[in-house]
Amino acid sequence: MLVPLITAFCYLESIKNIISYLIPMAGLFLVGGFLGYFKPAKDTRMGAREGYVIVSLSWLLMSLFGCLPFLISGYVKDFFTAFFEISSGFTTTGASALTSEQLSNMLNEGGHSLLMWRSFSHWIGGMGILVFILAIILESKDGSALHVLRAESPGPQVGKITSKMKMSSRILYLIYISMTLLEIAALNICHIFDKNMTFFDSLIMSFGTAGTGGFATTALSCALYAPCSQYVIAIFMLLFSINFSIYYWLLIKNFKDILHNEELRFFIAIVIISVLIITIQIVNLYSNTEEAFRHAFFTVASIVSTTGYATTDYWSGVQGQWPILSLTIILILMFSGACAGSTAGGLKQSRMLILGKYSGTKIKTMVSPRRVEVIRLDGKPLDNKVVESTVAFFVLYIMVFVGCALLISIWNPEMSSTDKTPITMFSASLSCISNIGPGLGAVGPAGGFANFSWFSKLVLTFEMIAGRLELYPIFVLFAPITWKRSA
Amino acid sequence: MLVPLITAFCYLESIKNIISYLIPMAGLFLVGGFLGYFKPAKDTRMGAREGYVIVSLSWLLMSLFGCLPFLISGYVKDFFTAFFEISSGFTTTGASALTSEQLSNMLNEGGHSLLMWRSFSHWIGGMGILVFILAIILESKDGSALHVLRAESPGPQVGKITSKMKMSSRILYLIYISMTLLEIAALNICHIFDKNMTFFDSLIMSFGTAGTGGFATTALSCALYAPCSQYVIAIFMLLFSINFSIYYWLLIKNFKDILHNEELRFFIAIVIISVLIITIQIVNLYSNTEEAFRHAFFTVASIVSTTGYATTDYWSGVQGQWPILSLTIILILMFSGACAGSTAGGLKQSRMLILGKYSGTKIKTMVSPRRVEVIRLDGKPLDNKVVESTVAFFVLYIMVFVGCALLISIWNPEMSSTDKTPITMFSASLSCISNIGPGLGAVGPAGGFANFSWFSKLVLTFEMIAGRLELYPIFVLFAPITWKRSA
Repeated sequence: MLVPLITAFCYLESIKNIISYLIPMAGLFLVGGFLGYFKPAKDTRMGAREGYVIVSLSWLLMSLFGCLPFLISGYVKDFFTAFFEISSGFTTTGASALTSEQLSNMLNEGGHSLLMWRSFSHWIGGMGILVFILAIILESKDGSALHVLRAESPGPQVGKITSKMKMSSRILYLIYISMTLLEIAALNICHIFDKNMTFFDSLIMSFGTAGTGGFATTALSCALYAPCSQYVIAIFMLLFSINFSIYYWLLIKNFKDILHNEELRFFIAIVIISVLIITIQIVNLYSNTEEAFRHAFFTVASIVSTTGYATTDYWSGVQGQWPILSLTIILILMFSGACAGSTAGGLKQSRMLILGKYSGTKIKTMVSPRRVEVIRLDGKPLDNKVVESTVAFFVLYIMVFVGCALLISIWNPEMSSTDKTPITMFSASLSCISNIGPGLGAVGPAGGFANFSWFSKLVLTFEMIAGRLELYPIFVLFAPITWKRSA
Repeated sequence: MLVPLITAFCYLESIKNIISYLIPMAGLFLVGGFLGYFKPAKDTRMGAREGYVIVSLSWLLMSLFGCLPFLISGYVKDFFTAFFEISSGFTTTGASALTSEQLSNMLNEGGHSLLMWRSFSHWIGGMGILVFILAIILESKDGSALHVLRAESPGPQVGKITSKMKMSSRILYLIYISMTLLEIAALNICHIFDKNMTFFDSLIMSFGTAGTGGFATTALSCALYAPCSQYVIAIFMLLFSINFSIYYWLLIKNFKDILHNEELRFFIAIVIISVLIITIQIVNLYSNTEEAFRHAFFTVASIVSTTGYATTDYWSGVQGQWPILSLTIILILMFSGACAGSTAGGLKQSRMLILGKYSGTKIKTMVSPRRVEVIRLDGKPLDNKVVESTVAFFVLYIMVFVGCALLISIWNPEMSSTDKTPITMFSASLSCISNIGPGLGAVGPAGGFANFSWFSKLVLTFEMIAGRLELYPIFVLFAPITWKRSA
């Protein structure tokens, strides 16, 4: 919390704000010191189960402490809203339960540091809180860190890739930091043409882009920036949703592996096709082709990277709702997400690829049952276990998505009845599990999550954390079997 | 086509109508005779692949011939509409692409026989066209009929159950016919209190209920009948969506197996819970509790059995849209469908059960990787292959559902822009793959599929047939590998 604290000093904010960071910091020190007393017994080994439990508990604890500044400073009155907001930050969802009034209060009445904290949580969350701690603070001596890393990393295969390439989390972090600095620099160059892109804004937007989060300074998101800044943000959103191994390969000049990466090719193809179709569809809604292309490009980049920034309102904007094909494409992109090994959420393109190939294989097996089909990715045959766990993940993903859509439909007294549509509930649930931010309907780019009840907010908060940790850790935490000694 | 032909004579319909049945009948005779000349070579064996191809081709051919009466009689001008309509009949979907004007033309201007043909197709389709032919006309001498039966029967395990219980398709058909006759009788008793339930209507509604189809005599569906008829139809919809083995067990007084049937218990629990929640939610929308309960009960029965009849319009009726929780429940019921081994569509409750248990097992395996978990159904351990194919089916189901939603979003020039919402496209796709009929949005109970373009109608037609045949046969038909000699 040093970052928002420094921001608070820079902007000469009230004592109350400064206290609101000092109290949770003190609390964290105390809890940390207290937990430090319990040394693990010497024969304790850390397995997958312990890894899952540690990760889930850490995320819950971080969110609990993280929401305190909002509450103590008084900008947010309600615990569940603050908890939702900071979880949305750490999980890089970027769905905001704050009203636009609350947001402008923060910006105009001495709450810059809170906005900074909100967006900085994206940046921390992007690479994983624990990977962050492991990389910067601790050096892991035995193999136990691997289980934590594995429980926290996105994508079906990342653990294997990481260990195979002997790429330590430090290198990952160096890439992450340099790219963020690059974006901050690029946005500050844009400041020449775009007076709205202040230094503060460039920091906020870069943190939000790097973590593929989506919190902005105002409820207008990116609509207030000039086209050049929008292009810069869109390009960086895409860059941050590519597997970070690609950048490592670039550094060590391993171009062969980059060219052979099926996920990357698939991802680029999907982005290009989506942008083209949407541009053609919406060209009549905007004043010229460049504007239509810019909005299509930005929206696709924002959705596929699960960031959730917006330059235009595709759901209820002044130019009217986008054509149905574009909306359907947006919904499908929400589902798929970006590449494994990036900071983005969603199912991940590599999983989509594996699922597609899996379905093809199943049909072939139907035709000739005795044939054994092997699924290949990047030219290499995939381990059956990877395929199986991808399929299982997909089934769980759909179940959680549909189940939570049901739960948040139950009770929302403050929501107007015109907002309570199936598309609102299902896209809110999808948006949270994929860590995107906006959805369609009442949670569209111009809407928000402020009107949900505390119960729905709690459900969505858990869904965001479950989505960010790729489901298993949260389930393991709540499974009764985890807490049995004999298991 | 004898049934509509007889109807045409009873109602003294025009020569044109009678010719419209005679031409396809003659055509079928010719094609049948022609194909009869090709005797299979003596060493030809029929495997799974041939079974799939025969079934898919038969369904396509039947639909092609089945749509001729609509076209020749002149009530429907457009081939794709007629093809959609009769496929919707055979697949027991009950989604209508006819306008309410076209429907009332048929009813009031001498087209009773066409309505009869439309609904009779439900009744044939309910048990499977080929099972129908095998049971009534042919007696299968070798085991080759089994592959046809397996390709056409709904549910993950029915082939096994059927062979294990030595229940021939004749017994199944006897149960089916007696239950249909029972419903016709019950509806005719209702006629005492309900002058709208004529003998013609009782036949139409019984055929529609038995096949869990959903075609009615008018666009009003069941709203024009008295409460007693509505209760009778609702109860029979539920009866026809239970695994037919249960009735066989009832006949042979095997009560133990009925009590141990997990799917049945799960199904009953889901129906009761859904009806209760919806009744509580909509009680204020209707004049009294009985009415609210009746609409809730009827709608749940109609959706879960994938029939698609309606007594009230939950989407855009005079009483307004139903509360969001009820709509979400309806959407989830659309997804799940009824029991395996019934005439209903959808994913089937047994698959939902297996998927739920599968997810639980996966989480347990995450906690303790060395543990081997066995999934049990009805107290017996399930074969791993059944679980695997259920999961694969689920993945394919979602992919087809989402993919077709994308395809039908592409081009619909005749649809008004307010109708082109994501909820319309996704629920239309879901409704067709689950063989239900109505969806939400523009395809809600008061809407229809008339405004879709010919391309969208074609996509939805294939989706209905794919859904009815449980995906694999249609995929096998179109897979290039099927047509390679060496495969």
